[in-house]
Amino acid sequence: MEIIPGPLLKTIDSPADLKKLPREKLHQVCDELRQYIIDVVSVHGGHFGASLGVVELTTALHYVYNTPYDQLVWDVGHQAYGHKILTGRRDNFVTNRKYNGISGFPKRSESEYDTFGVGHSSTSISAALGMAMAAKYKGETDRKTVAVIGDGSMTAGMAFEAMNHAGVANSDMLIILNDNGIGIDPNTGALKEYLTDISTSPTYNKVKDDVWKLMGKLPVGKNFTRAMGHKLVEGLKGMVNSSANLFEALKIRYFGPIDGHNVAKLVDTLKDLRDIPGPKLLHIVTTKGKGYALAEQDQTKWHAPGLFDKVTGEIFKKKFDTPQPPKYQDVFGHTLIELAERNQRIFGITPAMPSGSSLKFMMEKMPDRAFDVGICEQHAVTLSAGMATQGMRVFCNIYSSFMQRAYDQVVHDVAIQKLPVVFCLDRAGLVGDDGPTHHGAYDIAYMRCIPNIVISAPMNESELRNLMYTSQLESTDVPFVIRYPRGEGTMPEWKTEMKEITIGKGRKLKDGDGIAILSFGHPGNFAASAIRDLKLEGVNPGHYDMRFAKPLDEELLHEACQRYQKLITVEDGCIEGGFGSAVLEFMAKHNYKNEVRILGIPDRIVEHGTPKELQHECKYDAVAIKETVLEMMKDKVRVTELLG
Amino acid sequence: MEIIPGPLLKTIDSPADLKKLPREKLHQVCDELRQYIIDVVSVHGGHFGASLGVVELTTALHYVYNTPYDQLVWDVGHQAYGHKILTGRRDNFVTNRKYNGISGFPKRSESEYDTFGVGHSSTSISAALGMAMAAKYKGETDRKTVAVIGDGSMTAGMAFEAMNHAGVANSDMLIILNDNGIGIDPNTGALKEYLTDISTSPTYNKVKDDVWKLMGKLPVGKNFTRAMGHKLVEGLKGMVNSSANLFEALKIRYFGPIDGHNVAKLVDTLKDLRDIPGPKLLHIVTTKGKGYALAEQDQTKWHAPGLFDKVTGEIFKKKFDTPQPPKYQDVFGHTLIELAERNQRIFGITPAMPSGSSLKFMMEKMPDRAFDVGICEQHAVTLSAGMATQGMRVFCNIYSSFMQRAYDQVVHDVAIQKLPVVFCLDRAGLVGDDGPTHHGAYDIAYMRCIPNIVISAPMNESELRNLMYTSQLESTDVPFVIRYPRGEGTMPEWKTEMKEITIGKGRKLKDGDGIAILSFGHPGNFAASAIRDLKLEGVNPGHYDMRFAKPLDEELLHEACQRYQKLITVEDGCIEGGFGSAVLEFMAKHNYKNEVRILGIPDRIVEHGTPKELQHECKYDAVAIKETVLEMMKDKVRVTELLG
Repeated sequence: MEIIPGPLLKTIDSPADLKKLPREKLHQVCDELRQYIIDVVSVHGGHFGASLGVVELTTALHYVYNTPYDQLVWDVGHQAYGHKILTGRRDNFVTNRKYNGISGFPKRSESEYDTFGVGHSSTSISAALGMAMAAKYKGETDRKTVAVIGDGSMTAGMAFEAMNHAGVANSDMLIILNDNGIGIDPNTGALKEYLTDISTSPTYNKVKDDVWKLMGKLPVGKNFTRAMGHKLVEGLKGMVNSSANLFEALKIRYFGPIDGHNVAKLVDTLKDLRDIPGPKLLHIVTTKGKGYALAEQDQTKWHAPGLFDKVTGEIFKKKFDTPQPPKYQDVFGHTLIELAERNQRIFGITPAMPSGSSLKFMMEKMPDRAFDVGICEQHAVTLSAGMATQGMRVFCNIYSSFMQRAYDQVVHDVAIQKLPVVFCLDRAGLVGDDGPTHHGAYDIAYMRCIPNIVISAPMNESELRNLMYTSQLESTDVPFVIRYPRGEGTMPEWKTEMKEITIGKGRKLKDGDGIAILSFGHPGNFAASAIRDLKLEGVNPGHYDMRFAKPLDEELLHEACQRYQKLITVEDGCIEGGFGSAVLEFMAKHNYKNEVRILGIPDRIVEHGTPKELQHECKYDAVAIKETVLEMMKDKVRVTELLG
Repeated sequence: MEIIPGPLLKTIDSPADLKKLPREKLHQVCDELRQYIIDVVSVHGGHFGASLGVVELTTALHYVYNTPYDQLVWDVGHQAYGHKILTGRRDNFVTNRKYNGISGFPKRSESEYDTFGVGHSSTSISAALGMAMAAKYKGETDRKTVAVIGDGSMTAGMAFEAMNHAGVANSDMLIILNDNGIGIDPNTGALKEYLTDISTSPTYNKVKDDVWKLMGKLPVGKNFTRAMGHKLVEGLKGMVNSSANLFEALKIRYFGPIDGHNVAKLVDTLKDLRDIPGPKLLHIVTTKGKGYALAEQDQTKWHAPGLFDKVTGEIFKKKFDTPQPPKYQDVFGHTLIELAERNQRIFGITPAMPSGSSLKFMMEKMPDRAFDVGICEQHAVTLSAGMATQGMRVFCNIYSSFMQRAYDQVVHDVAIQKLPVVFCLDRAGLVGDDGPTHHGAYDIAYMRCIPNIVISAPMNESELRNLMYTSQLESTDVPFVIRYPRGEGTMPEWKTEMKEITIGKGRKLKDGDGIAILSFGHPGNFAASAIRDLKLEGVNPGHYDMRFAKPLDEELLHEACQRYQKLITVEDGCIEGGFGSAVLEFMAKHNYKNEVRILGIPDRIVEHGTPKELQHECKYDAVAIKETVLEMMKDKVRVTELLG
């Protein structure tokens, strides 16, 4: 069914068309834009609530600013659907997040309106400041730069670093703080409370008004001279205008808060701010999911709900006749509670992903032992390290691509001190629709070079449970990485009894002839499937589930190198420096000369698509494994054929 | 000459001894402690100014708190010499930073008083909060946690992340903000200005007093009722006490500023604060280098001056009869100016290391094009990316080990978008005295897995200049890493004419027989030296200076693999996943079976010492290369001997 945009939206092929409209028509543009997002996302999927929340802001920004000459940087970017639709991608929007379709995030190669590629949070102020400083240097004094950042993203340290610089850089930049109190899950932390304070309580905004009003009425008499009054007024002015506000303390002029759903007010305010030089921040208050009642009510659920009936609000779920394997995430979440019930030293920490990681189960059940620390990966890791010095065993759950944010903390605060923190790297490997910014491609490589650390990956749910169990044992006295992919595993009956796995020990799944596959993590299932297929072709590879990329199971590797002439390694991670590379290092050390093929993520940016599509494209799915075996064994296959 | 501590200091073997002294004696302890630091550092070297600045604080902390049960976390840690001396390491202090001696930073394995290992900045609040939360969970309600952090370290994002959590975590923790306005170089940024404001200007402190005083005098009359007055007072109280201060905005109670050199006042204040529950911050103002006049005057020079005459203040420098090779740092600094004079698009950025990196030369000469952004590596990288979108060519100079702080920004903001930012990774490889936290051991491995990126290392000064030249050419449209070590190169006549190097092209330095050495970066000089020695033994290795770890020079590698049976790779970086590993991947792809030995930093934490000592220990210096060649060629050598 074709999705038809509203009559006004249909005419807007670029912001130039938007600018032709009288201001009174902007309401209608907003309504149609919102409806179009609902229509498309309900049928094609994608992020939902965030873009609904900034419909008015998006419209006002493109109405007031001279984009793309004026530069608009969206933080995170999953709220930029309206921006995409208004900037030439209305009709293409139905391909959003699909293989070969447009990206779910702003992307420089996709449009000149996408000034900066995003996906991770809290980069916008730094990037926009770089643009503003360059514009200033080039003498483009009429060129404006705007960063739009949510209050959740504002908690990440790099946003603070950028403000610390912006406040003194004296470049012309507007930061729009989109305060909706929620990221994917509700925001936490002191900043959130502060923003609530200045928006709603008398401590800032109301007092500011009261004080100003009252100051006018101050009586002057014998005990209270004009000079005293003047002094008081001046002092109060300083406090009200300057250091009284967190942002103004950082030398960034603060405006607001204003209603982010009043498009006319936004247009007027932005027009005023456009002409005020220097660094400034506009605080707008919005509702995530605005305009779709269910999304406003349960914002976490409707962050990216999947396909749904836009009329009834029913979210479609696949139905199955038989029990299905659970998500790795849920296995993590439920298993952690089991472990924590037995081991009082266990804590759980997530940087802003309670739902995504399923730590929420423990947060609900054991609120004093499981925390969301906000979009603060660096803090999450070092906090875990601090707890570990006290004998606590922290499960610090961070998505693989977000762990890049805390790399130094893993090296400096955990590994060098050999503290036994457990890092559960969720969404390791190619994640699918979110694309390049979210692929957990590099963790094996960037972790493997760090001394003292254990790197493991389960092939299935039961293995995940065993690795989690092992990681929290008193005898495990090292940092312990467990990486697993997004989504379902393979075992409907996943609640197996937990057993210790000796660190650095893999398992032989089968013997074979001439060639063996060494798999790391869930691609072991691709290997197993390829091996089943290969039976029909008369080829019989051996198969080892190596379980650990570090330390390697040298005993198994000696066996594999001695027994098989040819080896294939497979992993859901980058080839450069990854698990396969570790096997090569082992071989070089022991002077083995086997022929080796390494399958994994190639050395290029992999775009978005379903994991299946991408694994196939990257040639490490079952089909690719089978083909690689056949190619490496082609002489043998030919001999067999001739003999057969 | 033996260094004798003062009479009181001599009696202090642990904080228990300190606690026995009456408060009036603490002045003398401080004087003796300061003198002992001067005596030892002038003769044995080390960081200087920072520890002098916190003598009173250190003494007061160990006097008031029950260390090590109460937990003291020093940020960065180069200011912890006084702490080390008071906690049982007085006599050992002469081995500070020496091979097999005590560490220049707090280190858990060294003392129970060193609660958390440090070296990089801004980790203390996170670590201390982890300790405080664990203490609370364990019911140790009498156990106190204190983080001491400088105003420079406070600019890093992770300090902000930690405060955002601390403000709502309701754990008992004291943050001491040691405000001296300087890190290694003078601090920059809005926070620094803010702290100056609240310390010195009427906008906060003075107004706070004025307002409180005046409020008492407010007259009540017809136009100004008691109710109005009450409202005003309440409002003002709210502002003065709460959101009026950056830290209080983050729900952390703010105290100060107080004089950090008044030990009696510090003792009283800390005693009071010890009994106030919840998260709180004490702002103390100190002078870096306090008590040594020259160090107070030129704080950057005296951060770590090397050996000096403590009486005259003369800093000893080695004298040479012939011109010496310059530091790589200075070659970088001067070459960047040469390039920037010709290429108007060049910018220079450093996160708080203008002197260390020698970017200071450009900052002085071109202040609108070279910046210090504070201890903000994340922001530095994404700011560079933002500038790169505008056609600017930014040389972002970050020490290899600090680049770990900006890893996600390199991946997410630079590499995915293929923006041509130049990363000069200073202090790559083993750095020497600073030890494990500062070794630039991992960058080849953690960079090599990232697509789109070029990774290079010069073998000498001329090569550094050529790589810098190449990196800024219009035709170079990719992120470009240039890694080089701390200290001197090899070319007294370093100011060679700059030439383009084809990206991914190494150079053959010499042909040989049977074995070749593939070197990456400055260890090429070790290889050359080993080769000279080996001539005497009748062994003649080939030698390639590969220049690039990514992309590899496949032509040279094919030649080497085809021409030599045996290969040695050598790099000043970790073996796991590094340059040698890249060579193995190439060989696996092309099915070469050469015998390969990889020399580099082994898979363990390497402690401190001189680079020479450490390179020898790690077996990749000239001696080790020679031995490896001889071992690999022993059959051939034996044959030659027999024939000879």
